[in-house]
Amino acid sequence: MTVLVPYETLLSLVTGIFRDRGVPGERAATAAAALCHGDLTGVTSHGTVNLTRLYLPLLDRGRMDPEADMHVQTDLGACVLADARRTLGLWSASQAMELACARASRYGIGMVSLRGATHIGCAGHHAARAVAHGMIGLIASNCGGQRIAPPPGGTAAMLGTNPLALACPAGDAHPFVLDMSTTVVPTGRVRAAAREGRTIPVGWLAAEDGSPVTDAAAFDRGEARLLWLGGDPETGAYKGFGLGLLVEILAALVPGAALGAVSADGERDDDIGVLALAIAPDLLRTGFADDAATLFDAVRGWPAQDPGAPVVYPGWHEGERAARFREHGVPIPTAVYEELCVASARMAG
Amino acid sequence: MTVLVPYETLLSLVTGIFRDRGVPGERAATAAAALCHGDLTGVTSHGTVNLTRLYLPLLDRGRMDPEADMHVQTDLGACVLADARRTLGLWSASQAMELACARASRYGIGMVSLRGATHIGCAGHHAARAVAHGMIGLIASNCGGQRIAPPPGGTAAMLGTNPLALACPAGDAHPFVLDMSTTVVPTGRVRAAAREGRTIPVGWLAAEDGSPVTDAAAFDRGEARLLWLGGDPETGAYKGFGLGLLVEILAALVPGAALGAVSADGERDDDIGVLALAIAPDLLRTGFADDAATLFDAVRGWPAQDPGAPVVYPGWHEGERAARFREHGVPIPTAVYEELCVASARMAG
Repeated sequence: MTVLVPYETLLSLVTGIFRDRGVPGERAATAAAALCHGDLTGVTSHGTVNLTRLYLPLLDRGRMDPEADMHVQTDLGACVLADARRTLGLWSASQAMELACARASRYGIGMVSLRGATHIGCAGHHAARAVAHGMIGLIASNCGGQRIAPPPGGTAAMLGTNPLALACPAGDAHPFVLDMSTTVVPTGRVRAAAREGRTIPVGWLAAEDGSPVTDAAAFDRGEARLLWLGGDPETGAYKGFGLGLLVEILAALVPGAALGAVSADGERDDDIGVLALAIAPDLLRTGFADDAATLFDAVRGWPAQDPGAPVVYPGWHEGERAARFREHGVPIPTAVYEELCVASARMAG
Repeated sequence: MTVLVPYETLLSLVTGIFRDRGVPGERAATAAAALCHGDLTGVTSHGTVNLTRLYLPLLDRGRMDPEADMHVQTDLGACVLADARRTLGLWSASQAMELACARASRYGIGMVSLRGATHIGCAGHHAARAVAHGMIGLIASNCGGQRIAPPPGGTAAMLGTNPLALACPAGDAHPFVLDMSTTVVPTGRVRAAAREGRTIPVGWLAAEDGSPVTDAAAFDRGEARLLWLGGDPETGAYKGFGLGLLVEILAALVPGAALGAVSADGERDDDIGVLALAIAPDLLRTGFADDAATLFDAVRGWPAQDPGAPVVYPGWHEGERAARFREHGVPIPTAVYEELCVASARMAG
C-alpha cells in the first residue's frame, strides 16, 4: 500500500526532521532533496525508507555530526582534498560536486576528494548537479571500512558495494545519469525483496560453494554472498570486482579514507571516501552541448526489438518518473510515510 | 604450437617493422612496447597477432599516419585537448598518459583528451605508465564510429567495446591494472576462440532472440551479438551498457571524436576518442604509497576458498606472467611469429 505525497510536502517533511536533529537550514534542505531523490526517481531502495533505518540512527548515535564544517586539507586549485568530519553525506557529496564544478569552470576539470564522509544516498543525484552547469559530473564512494562482498575466490567479505555515478547533459531531454553499485545489485534491493518476501533472480546472490541463492532473506542471515557485476569469473566477475577496487582507489585510497580490506571494523561504514569530479567540455571545445543532445537523441531513437519498449539510456526512466511524480505526487509506502510522520511529530513534542 | 621468443628480440622485431613503414624511431619503439605488452602479459588477443591483421593494414591503406604530429587544440594547464591526427594509437595513448602525468605533477590532476586517434591496443599498458610516476592512471577509449554491440532491447549495434583501464601503484608488488572492455569480453577473445575452433561460455554472445550462442564463429557471421558486462537486464546489462556510454562520453564526446551512435560508417573505427587522466595523490596528502602497498598486500593475503588459488587483484597475474616471460621468453604462436618474420624480411627486400 502506498500513499501519493506531493513532492514539496515530502521535501519539507524530511527537511523538518533533519532540522529537528540539529542540521542547519540550507544543509537540511539539500540533504532532504538527496534523500527524496530516491522516491522521486523510483529508486525506492535509496529513498525515505532509509531515514529511520540509516540516517536518524547515525545522528542519534553521534556517528554523524549535523553541524560540523568540512575542513579543506589541501587546495591545489583544480584539486581539493577535504575532511568531511562526519557531516551528512547526503549534503557533503552535493557540496563536493558543486565545488568540483566551480573549479572545473576555471581549470576545465575539478576534483574534490573527501575523507571522513558518511552515507551519501543516491550517488547519481549528486553527480547530476553538474548537468545544471552544462558539465559532466562523476561521483564515486566507497562504504568506508564496511565489508559486504567477498572477492572472487575469497571466503570473507572485503569491500562495500562501492557506487559509481556519471551524469551528462542530453540537451532538452532527461540527462544521462548512470548510478550503479559495482556489485550486481546494491544491498538495498536485496533487503527490499526480503521485506516484501519476494524471491530474487539467479545471479544476485550465491552460497559459499557458488550455487545460486534466490531467497533474499538469506543475505542478512549470512547464508549468501552478494556477487560482483559480471557474476561468474568467466562472464566478468573480475571486472565487477575490479570496478569495486577502482572505486576504492579513486574514492578512498586517494583521500586516505577507511578501506574495507584493512579496516578494524568491517561492520561499520565510518570514514567513507568520496570522489567528486567535474569536467567542463565547453572550456575545451565548441559544440559539446549540441553533440551531447544529438548523441542521446540517437540512443532514444535506436531501432528497438519491441516497439513498446524503446531503447533508453540510464537516467531516462528516472527522469520520466520524476516528472510524473512531481506533477501527481510521489508514491510512498504507507508504513514509511507513517514513520516519517511519527519522526516529524517528535518535533512538536 | 608456440615458440619462445626473447622479449628484446620480439620488441626489436616489431620496432623494425614499424620503422620500415615510416614510423619515426622512438615512436616505433613505444608502439612496439604497447603491442608486445599483450603477449608479455598473456593477453594474446591484444598482442602481436594484431600486427598483420589490424595495424599494418591501417598503415598500408593510409588510415593511420606514421609521421604526423599531434596537434594541441586547447591547453588549460590541468586539461589538454589534442587532435591525434591519425598517428599510431599505440603511441599517442602513451604520449597522452605521459602528458597527463606531467600536468598532474603540477596540478594534482591532469587530463588529456584526444580526438582523431587510432586503435590504442591494451588500454592498461598506457594507464600503467602513471605508476612509474607514483600516480594513478586512467585510460578510456571508444572505438571511433565503429558499432559492435547493440543496446539492451535494440536490434542494431550502437557502440564499440569501449575499454576502460585504471592503474595504481601497489608498493613493491605488481601494480593494480584493471583493463576491461565494457562488453562481457572484447571481440579479440571471441575471434581467438573462433580461430581455434573452441566453443565459448554461455553469457558472451546471444542470438537476436536473446538465446545463448556458444559458437564463437557465429559472431563474425553476423548471427550473434556481443553482450554488455552484466549479461541480462536483470543481472546488470544496463550497467554494462551504461559503462559503455560512460566511456563514449568521457573518451569521445568530450573531445568531439566520432560517436558510434551517430557515425556515418559503423564498420570503421576512424576518429577514435581517448581520455588519459592522471592523479598525483602525493600532492594531496602524505602516506599514499604506504597505504596503497598495505591495501594490495591485504587483498593478496585474503582468505581463499582454494589455498591453491590465492585471491588476487586485476594486474597481478599479468605482472607475474610478464616477469616470467621476460626471463624465459615470450610464447608466440608459431604462425604469428612466422608472420612477423615475413613482415620483417620485407625490410631487407
